[in-house]
Amino acid sequence: MATIGLLHPGEMGAAVGGCLVSVGHTVLWDPDGRSRATTGRALGAGLDGAGLAAVISRSSVILSVCPPHAVLEVARRVAERRYGGIYVDANAVSVATAAQVADIVTASGAAYVDGGIIGLPPENAGHTRLYLSGRQAGEVQALFRRSALEARIAEGPPHAASAVKMAYAAWTKGTSALLLACRALARAEGVERTLLAEWALSQKGLPAQCEGAASAAALKGWRWVAEMEEIAASMAAAGLPHGFHEAAADVYDRASRSGGAQPAPSPRSGGRPDPGTLDAVLSALM
Amino acid sequence: MATIGLLHPGEMGAAVGGCLVSVGHTVLWDPDGRSRATTGRALGAGLDGAGLAAVISRSSVILSVCPPHAVLEVARRVAERRYGGIYVDANAVSVATAAQVADIVTASGAAYVDGGIIGLPPENAGHTRLYLSGRQAGEVQALFRRSALEARIAEGPPHAASAVKMAYAAWTKGTSALLLACRALARAEGVERTLLAEWALSQKGLPAQCEGAASAAALKGWRWVAEMEEIAASMAAAGLPHGFHEAAADVYDRASRSGGAQPAPSPRSGGRPDPGTLDAVLSALM
Repeated sequence: MATIGLLHPGEMGAAVGGCLVSVGHTVLWDPDGRSRATTGRALGAGLDGAGLAAVISRSSVILSVCPPHAVLEVARRVAERRYGGIYVDANAVSVATAAQVADIVTASGAAYVDGGIIGLPPENAGHTRLYLSGRQAGEVQALFRRSALEARIAEGPPHAASAVKMAYAAWTKGTSALLLACRALARAEGVERTLLAEWALSQKGLPAQCEGAASAAALKGWRWVAEMEEIAASMAAAGLPHGFHEAAADVYDRASRSGGAQPAPSPRSGGRPDPGTLDAVLSALM
Repeated sequence: MATIGLLHPGEMGAAVGGCLVSVGHTVLWDPDGRSRATTGRALGAGLDGAGLAAVISRSSVILSVCPPHAVLEVARRVAERRYGGIYVDANAVSVATAAQVADIVTASGAAYVDGGIIGLPPENAGHTRLYLSGRQAGEVQALFRRSALEARIAEGPPHAASAVKMAYAAWTKGTSALLLACRALARAEGVERTLLAEWALSQKGLPAQCEGAASAAALKGWRWVAEMEEIAASMAAAGLPHGFHEAAADVYDRASRSGGAQPAPSPRSGGRPDPGTLDAVLSALM
C-alpha cells in the first residue's frame, strides 16, 4: 500500500482520494488555507491532513487535481521543494500546459505522468475514467485497481491523457455553453416562446438540457473558464478554429457571475435544477 | 388560387414550390442561367419557367428561397423592377439583414413578410415549418394550407421569423461544426482511438453524428458559411459571444473545399453516409 499526496482536493479531488483510501492507500492533503467545505469533504473521504512539506516528503506519488488556472502554481510549489516521486497532473489542460508542468516537475527530479479525468466525481464504479499516459502511467494505474475510478492508459503521445480530456470536454462543455447562447439569443430577440414550441417538435431534449447547463454553469463556470481557454489554445495549436471555446469561456465567465449558483438539486426536487437559475444565467449572458 | 414567384429554387425552394403547386397554385421561376439539376428539380416540382420580368409582373407573392449570401442581390433585382406585391424572404439571415431586405423591397413599393424555414425540404407533412412574421404574414400562411409545409406565425417583433431561424440553426449547425472540430482535434493529437472508446461508453450517439455532420458539411457547407456569419452577427448584435459561429463558418468553409462531397446516401447503403467523407472533411479542417 502506498502513501499518495493529493493537491488540492475539491469535489473531484476528494472523490478521487476516497477511491485510493477505499483500496487501502494512505492519502495526504494540505489543509492550509482551505475552506471548511473542503475540509469536510476531505475528512469524509478519509484523507489525512498534513502540511505541504509532509505531503511532499512522505508521498511516492502526488496527484494534482485542481482547477486548470491553478495547475502551474501547484506544480511550482511542489518542484520548489525538490519532490522526487511521481507527479501526476490529472487536470483539464492543453498538451502545451501539460508539457510545461512536466518541465517544471522533472527539472526538480520528479517523474511526470499525464492524466485526465472524464466523468463525475467517482462514487460508484463505472461512471468515471482517469486516463493516464507517459512512461510510468502503469504504476499510477495500479494504485486504482479495484476502486470506483477506472484508470486507463491513453495510447499515443506522452500527453495523450490531456489531449483526450481536451477533445472530450470540447464537446460536452462547448455544447452546454453554445446551448445557453442560443437560448439567450432567442430571448434577446423576443422569440423564446416560438423557439421553445419548435424545440418541443424537433429537439425535445433541449429545454431540460438548458436547465442542466445553466445550473452547472452557475455553480462550476468559474473553473471552466480556464478549461475552455485551454481547449481554445489546443484547437489553435492544431490549426483548428478556436472561436468556439473562446466564446464558451466568455459564457462561463458571465454565467459564474450571475448570482444564480444554487446547491446541487436535492432528491426532494426530483433532481431537477431550479428554473430560477436559468433565468439568472440568461440575464448574465445578455 | 394564386400565382406565386419563387426565386431561386434549389433543393429547398423546389420542394417549397412543390407544396404550393400541390394545393393548386401556379408557381413561376426564372430558369435563366440555372443548372440542369435545378431545372430538373423545378420541372419535377411542377413549377413553370418564366423570365424574371414575367415572374415579377404576374406574381401576387414572391418567395425568396436562396443561399443567405445571395439574399440582398435577389431583393435588389426584384426591387429594380418595381415589384408591388408581397415579398417574402424565407432565408436564414439575421434580423439586421432581413431589415435590409425589407428596406430594399418596400422602397420600391412591395410589402415585406419575414420568413424562416426549419426542417428538411418538405416532401411529407409534419417535418418542416415555415415561420412567418410581419403585418401580412397571415396572407402568406394561407397559401400553404393543406400542403406538406406547415406555415406558422412567429409571434413577436416584425422579423421574429428570421430570429427564430437564427436561434434554431445556431444550435443545430453550430453543434455539427463543433463536433467535427472536436474529432479533428483528437485526430491531430493522435488520440482519436482513445476518444472513440470513451465516446462508446459515455456519448454513444456521437460517432454516427460525426459521419452525418461531415456528409452534410461536405455537401452543403458552401451555403452554410454565410448562414453562420449571419448567426455570428445576430449574436454580436444581442451582446452575446459571436465566436462560436465565426468558428463554425470557418469549419464549413474548409469542409466545403474538402472534395468529400458525395451524393446523398442511397437506400442501398442503408442510408448511411460514406465514411470516406468524414476522413476527407477532417483532413480539410486540420
